[in-house]
Amino acid sequence: MNRPDIRRLPKRANPQEALNKLLDEVRSKTLSSENIALAEALGRVSAKDVYSNVNIPSYDKTFIDGYAINPKDTAGASATKPAAFKVVGKLFPVDYPTDAEVASGEAIYVACGAPIPKGAASTVKVEETRLYGDRIEVVREIKPGEGIIPLGDDVKQNALILKQGQVLRPQDIGLLASIGLPAAEVFKKPSIAILSGGDELIRQSKKDPSKIANNYALVVAGLASELGAVAELKGIMPDALDQVQAKISEALLDADIVVTIGGTSVGVKDFVPDAINNLGQPGVVVQGVSLRPGAVSGFGVVKGKPVVMLPGHIGSCIAGFYLFVAPLIRLYCGLTGDGFLPCLPAELTEAVDSGPQFRFLLLHLKRAEGKLLAEQVEGGSSALTTIVKSNGYSMIPPHTNLAKGTRVDVHLFGKLELAQIT
Amino acid sequence: MNRPDIRRLPKRANPQEALNKLLDEVRSKTLSSENIALAEALGRVSAKDVYSNVNIPSYDKTFIDGYAINPKDTAGASATKPAAFKVVGKLFPVDYPTDAEVASGEAIYVACGAPIPKGAASTVKVEETRLYGDRIEVVREIKPGEGIIPLGDDVKQNALILKQGQVLRPQDIGLLASIGLPAAEVFKKPSIAILSGGDELIRQSKKDPSKIANNYALVVAGLASELGAVAELKGIMPDALDQVQAKISEALLDADIVVTIGGTSVGVKDFVPDAINNLGQPGVVVQGVSLRPGAVSGFGVVKGKPVVMLPGHIGSCIAGFYLFVAPLIRLYCGLTGDGFLPCLPAELTEAVDSGPQFRFLLLHLKRAEGKLLAEQVEGGSSALTTIVKSNGYSMIPPHTNLAKGTRVDVHLFGKLELAQIT
Repeated sequence: MNRPDIRRLPKRANPQEALNKLLDEVRSKTLSSENIALAEALGRVSAKDVYSNVNIPSYDKTFIDGYAINPKDTAGASATKPAAFKVVGKLFPVDYPTDAEVASGEAIYVACGAPIPKGAASTVKVEETRLYGDRIEVVREIKPGEGIIPLGDDVKQNALILKQGQVLRPQDIGLLASIGLPAAEVFKKPSIAILSGGDELIRQSKKDPSKIANNYALVVAGLASELGAVAELKGIMPDALDQVQAKISEALLDADIVVTIGGTSVGVKDFVPDAINNLGQPGVVVQGVSLRPGAVSGFGVVKGKPVVMLPGHIGSCIAGFYLFVAPLIRLYCGLTGDGFLPCLPAELTEAVDSGPQFRFLLLHLKRAEGKLLAEQVEGGSSALTTIVKSNGYSMIPPHTNLAKGTRVDVHLFGKLELAQIT
Repeated sequence: MNRPDIRRLPKRANPQEALNKLLDEVRSKTLSSENIALAEALGRVSAKDVYSNVNIPSYDKTFIDGYAINPKDTAGASATKPAAFKVVGKLFPVDYPTDAEVASGEAIYVACGAPIPKGAASTVKVEETRLYGDRIEVVREIKPGEGIIPLGDDVKQNALILKQGQVLRPQDIGLLASIGLPAAEVFKKPSIAILSGGDELIRQSKKDPSKIANNYALVVAGLASELGAVAELKGIMPDALDQVQAKISEALLDADIVVTIGGTSVGVKDFVPDAINNLGQPGVVVQGVSLRPGAVSGFGVVKGKPVVMLPGHIGSCIAGFYLFVAPLIRLYCGLTGDGFLPCLPAELTEAVDSGPQFRFLLLHLKRAEGKLLAEQVEGGSSALTTIVKSNGYSMIPPHTNLAKGTRVDVHLFGKLELAQIT
């Protein structure tokens, strides 16, 4: 039967198989890297393994304020039979390298971080000594090496200190600085162009240009930038095939990933799949997945670049985003791992039945009773407030009944969600 | 006994009491806010409660592609006895507001998001109808309201949609956009000035100006910016009281919070406490806390601004940072909550004995066996690699023995740590 009002959606794909197809299509992409100053490198992904070319510390140093001595001089020392030393000098960190030396029965004052004089092999805390003029007394036996951090104790020369694919955290940046590197080699951030469908958005934005009509694009942009991409809102696709095609074509020029929102279903104005097919091989690869919500998600590939089609309902849009876009971003960022978001195990606060499709289960993860609980979030998949009430999700396989208390892996939407789990 | 080589540290304070003192000293600070475009507002903290002045959706709309009908016309309909409708028009989202109307026995094609014509009270999916020329057949009874999102279903006019003190996540920004706000009122980011102690750093940075000598300041800056502050490295304090004083004084001009690293202990060149006392009342409030590592942490208050003294050993420095600086940043960011970092419950993989002081326990939180495990990190508190191996910590009260498997609250160092818990 010819139905001008309906276009058949292909058989819905298994979401995991669809994702694998997508990643297979783009896995050969070569990631490029850039060299940026350490102070700018926070949160970026290391593009190489980094080895230390120095020892840290670069010399034996004291980690206490005290006196450097030869520990042999304290043999048999006690409160009643203290070992006495003549203080013959002072050393500060700035004095490295030093020629200072202690003979038997001599001590040198060493400030925290100072080098160890020749002849000394331990330092004893100021508070553990008695001072009489230029002499000190030590009231216990001091072991060789006490109070000293030996050369290379923190980092040995040639040690691997950072692996390719690791996110640069503050302490990693500090470590790069401590081996003398002023900059880090990191992968470039993938760029993602976001297009929204619908003449109604154009009319809305003409009515009040100061307002943001395509607010779902803003949500997707925020989620993408949280995951490490540079997101750019590329405006609205009018309801006409040639214009949708032109918009996608233009977005493909600069971006690594193109994402469309809306216009992917079987409505008479759903031009996105045809536009992608017209733009080149292979065109649409997956249209429709067995996922609730999110069933009308899909993707195509044009000139080697992925074009992800997200549904227009926000709940479905988010489901499609985490199914296809999040793993793409992770891959393009050069992150190691399984291509998914970080996840936290939590207990379901009520039973869940996934039904015949994969279920994109919106959750509110919270800390209570000393553990993590995952509450199902009520609300329709077209309500933005449903997403606002959620902070993560879990993907439940079809035909799965999970009892209350079952532990599931909750993927937080992004790092910002963590700030409110207190 | 007069000891020129030692200055008595005051009695060590209880860390929790010390923190309370600090927060009491600064709690009266008025937070200022700024209005910024939504696209820039990701991760910022809302400075006010926001109420919606509109309904979302602003009209009854269909959330499916289908036909708008009067459900009464489907009474008794079945596959063998279908209800027939004449299709009299089409509506798209762009057609709102509409005067279109259906009479009994009529249907109008509605694309997802389109307004509902007068006379209709339900929509039925395209796939659920049979089409014959300009007529459709519906093969089951349709309930009133089916396929429709009523006005205000997502957000009701005057509803509270965002609370003061909440972090703006992508979905919150989308919601602000959907009620027509182009910008958000957010708290200004607190500024934090970081000073490092030690002539040896000055010499090191003169030797090679391209390298970062005060790498611990870079770590502290990164941690602070992860928590929402704007961190600025204010250079190195030379080993002389007047110069330390001048550096702190200068840092106090612009910054909300001043942090010093090193020079806080009882060494002969530890000038920071005296400098703070010289700068004004009340000066040093707490010097030394009962915390391991981190014992020589403390803080002063000068002209109403906090000056936090962090120890020079990196492990101790981090402990002091999370004890004093992290809660300060959270307070100054305007975040609601208990003034601490987000935390995750996890099981200890081995027994812990805190000893006579509070213990700042460095941990590596990881996901394994379907739960979160907290591994103790080995390594000296002066080794940066110890911090690199860690991703969070737990604060254990004194004289506490925790058996393997005990659940503790792990505070991740920051949001970036989450990216590698996969």
